[in-house]
Amino acid sequence: MQMETVTLEKEFLDYVKKMSAYEEALSVIYWDLRTGAPKNGVDQRSQVIGVLSSEVFSMSVSEQMAEYIDKIAEDRHASELARKTAMECKKVYERNKKIPADEYREYVILQSKAESIWEEAKNKSDFEMFRPYLEKLVQTTKRFIGYWGYSGNKYNTLLDMYEPGVTVEVLDKVFGQLRKQIVPLVKQIADSADKPKTDFLFKHFPKEKQRAFSEEILRQMGYNFDAGRLDETVHPFAIGINPGDVRVTTKYDEKDFRTAVFGTIHEGGHALYEQNISPRLVGTPLCTGTSMGIHESQSLFYENFVGRNYSFWKKNYLLLQEYTDGQFAHVELEDYYRAINESKPSLIRIEADELTYPLHVMVRYEIEKGLFNDEIEVEDLPGIWNEKYEQYLGVIPENDAQGVLQDVHWSGGSFGYFPSYALGYMYAAQFKQAMLKDLPNFELLLEEGNLKPIQEWLTAKVHVHGKMKMPLEILNDVTGEGLNADHLAQYLNEKYREVYRLSN
Amino acid sequence: MQMETVTLEKEFLDYVKKMSAYEEALSVIYWDLRTGAPKNGVDQRSQVIGVLSSEVFSMSVSEQMAEYIDKIAEDRHASELARKTAMECKKVYERNKKIPADEYREYVILQSKAESIWEEAKNKSDFEMFRPYLEKLVQTTKRFIGYWGYSGNKYNTLLDMYEPGVTVEVLDKVFGQLRKQIVPLVKQIADSADKPKTDFLFKHFPKEKQRAFSEEILRQMGYNFDAGRLDETVHPFAIGINPGDVRVTTKYDEKDFRTAVFGTIHEGGHALYEQNISPRLVGTPLCTGTSMGIHESQSLFYENFVGRNYSFWKKNYLLLQEYTDGQFAHVELEDYYRAINESKPSLIRIEADELTYPLHVMVRYEIEKGLFNDEIEVEDLPGIWNEKYEQYLGVIPENDAQGVLQDVHWSGGSFGYFPSYALGYMYAAQFKQAMLKDLPNFELLLEEGNLKPIQEWLTAKVHVHGKMKMPLEILNDVTGEGLNADHLAQYLNEKYREVYRLSN
Repeated sequence: MQMETVTLEKEFLDYVKKMSAYEEALSVIYWDLRTGAPKNGVDQRSQVIGVLSSEVFSMSVSEQMAEYIDKIAEDRHASELARKTAMECKKVYERNKKIPADEYREYVILQSKAESIWEEAKNKSDFEMFRPYLEKLVQTTKRFIGYWGYSGNKYNTLLDMYEPGVTVEVLDKVFGQLRKQIVPLVKQIADSADKPKTDFLFKHFPKEKQRAFSEEILRQMGYNFDAGRLDETVHPFAIGINPGDVRVTTKYDEKDFRTAVFGTIHEGGHALYEQNISPRLVGTPLCTGTSMGIHESQSLFYENFVGRNYSFWKKNYLLLQEYTDGQFAHVELEDYYRAINESKPSLIRIEADELTYPLHVMVRYEIEKGLFNDEIEVEDLPGIWNEKYEQYLGVIPENDAQGVLQDVHWSGGSFGYFPSYALGYMYAAQFKQAMLKDLPNFELLLEEGNLKPIQEWLTAKVHVHGKMKMPLEILNDVTGEGLNADHLAQYLNEKYREVYRLSN
Repeated sequence: MQMETVTLEKEFLDYVKKMSAYEEALSVIYWDLRTGAPKNGVDQRSQVIGVLSSEVFSMSVSEQMAEYIDKIAEDRHASELARKTAMECKKVYERNKKIPADEYREYVILQSKAESIWEEAKNKSDFEMFRPYLEKLVQTTKRFIGYWGYSGNKYNTLLDMYEPGVTVEVLDKVFGQLRKQIVPLVKQIADSADKPKTDFLFKHFPKEKQRAFSEEILRQMGYNFDAGRLDETVHPFAIGINPGDVRVTTKYDEKDFRTAVFGTIHEGGHALYEQNISPRLVGTPLCTGTSMGIHESQSLFYENFVGRNYSFWKKNYLLLQEYTDGQFAHVELEDYYRAINESKPSLIRIEADELTYPLHVMVRYEIEKGLFNDEIEVEDLPGIWNEKYEQYLGVIPENDAQGVLQDVHWSGGSFGYFPSYALGYMYAAQFKQAMLKDLPNFELLLEEGNLKPIQEWLTAKVHVHGKMKMPLEILNDVTGEGLNADHLAQYLNEKYREVYRLSN
């Protein structure tokens, strides 16, 4: 019996290792496509992606896989690694297997068409052009929810794909709490008399110098260049190909260095997660971040709690000045700090500041929830979008390109993804509270540019586990509580009252 | 019957398309590893390479493959593409299938060990350290020849892997003819009174400028940057990932621009071949150069017949001067031309000039031929190597690192590869002769920097066919004759008598 388990377990782990190998090849190809692969080769490369993805898909729903899952996922003699791997495979198996093959094929074609139509529609700011595709995507996803089943709320099934354990019930509560605190703060800031000056941020800062400074900051964060590299792309990202090869890309705007610097810190936070996953998880589907939200918590922790912190710039502001040609020569650190923390309601999510960002996410959350509970129709989206922007942010899009068409997610059928962005903020704020107990000298570490203990803490508590722990399990183990919006609300309140010099 | 063929043919072509997809993924990974993949990820990447390669190997020797080969290779109802693909698969099938699996596994391990030992042995210039591994490699390869069989000469079986159709009989003849002409010429040059000055070549030439000039020349050659890119590596190479994605790498020596410029032209010649293979061959094993020798003929054609030609520099020397900072301001074109064609017997093959290069290859050819016909023992190699260098080139290595240990090929078991380098020269000279009939204005085209007609000629005659034609088939179709050393001998004689101003 014991012997049988051992043999089967080894066979199973070899099986998933092969799947992981195909996925690693796909990751290299994906990175390559985004960092200068010649355009004439792309069609053929797509074929290669198709072949490798189909292979992974077939292996994920094979009878062999069904047998492994059946025998290993609940076998208490099996190792924890094998069991959790089998459970992860089971999730994928059920998601993939429950959709009839022809419907799935149709859906994949629809996705790819919708994405290219969306791009055109966005360029023309023409929602009507995109509408029929979005309607089909919503309709198909509803049918899929029928196949998959749901508990409590239909939208929960979608949330579960990105943030297992987080439900509409939870989100309604925490988003409500957060909104109640942010919305009045945003208004107070809009009315404040003492706004930061920002003109000095937008001087010419050569790309090569920005690159060198970004590398310096990545190194300070603990990013290992023997296990990664920094490249340039239009849309920055981080990718974990394996824990020894986690790459970061960034974008350089010579008239606004913040794009590269805060972008690199953000992606660097994602990268630290992937670089520090336990090597024993390599070759299994557990060798990645546990959820979108926890991943985002790591990037946002570094971007906001480290990178937009006053202490962090005490030393690094001098370093920044070494890389610039007098741009900040006559700017006090205090003014610089206020400038990089400017908050202003805006229309575009990806350009939003730390304070207003969660409101952008909530708009999308409420719309998605409404769509999948038959309370909102696709045709009404532009109007609803604009109303919500006015209500939460006090701004109204002039057209749909600046409004409902701005994000790519829906065109790819990624419903349920957006909440992770705001969850990441909350997780990060909760982690910060917990970290302070172990590292009460947090501010001093930042001042000294000694970020190693911070990375080590996050590695021990979050990174190393990969997908061996569920997101809420990590949150609970680290903080002793569940999702709680208060920490983020308190942090934002304190920080922005200070930055905008508001009376209490 | 007809219908059956069509169905089976489609199935077969889908089967090889899948194999090609894996190979394309491997090519992307290979390129990535050589252009800055982080070192900590390499071990895991090797596993991925292992998985993908094994898959390709299994597919190449499967029963399914045997059936396809059996039914299609000789079926006159099948399309030419399917038949030739099946014949190519048959070659690989027989090569792979005849070796017992456990012996092949052992051999792969031996190869990888031998390569790392060779590297150390070369660094220490210690042949004795490498000897036992080389002995085992030779011994194993002899046993494999036993499995594969041979006709005429045992070494023919090895030659056939790189240059199908070329035998010891052919090589003995053409190499003999060539040697008879080159050796006395090399001596005359050594004794010549009017040697070119070269000191002006070695001024500081910044990397970025070299890169820009190299790109300019690649563009002039007809290299399509929408189907390729130029990167930097320690060991330059060209790689055809698919015809729409053929990449070139080069190396920049700021004290000797020739490394980058002639290296780029050389690799660019390889790249033009791969960029211009017929799109209908994509997804089959025929979508690559037909042999090592024909491939080398393309790189050498551009490097020598174009790049080291006086006419080519008439305009490009002015261009070069725009990229340099006065380096050539007081150097006449004539003197520059003579300098880049300096010929001097040397010890290291990859640093050899156009005239002496074939002699380096012949030394290796004779040694390999002796080894596999039991006329030479591995333990005697250093002595034999040094004798032959003295005899052919008049130079004697001071140590084995400069001698018998200099090349990586043998450590990887690549016996039979070296002759292709010299064959490439001969093919190129023969192509040049044939080209002159269609393009009698060859020199004028070079003068005008109008290289397009030259590329188009080579594309129509060579590139487009991929592996649809065998090397000697191409040679015969293009030139109307078989392998002939006279054209190369005549070219070298005329050129070097002129460069060294020798009396006739």
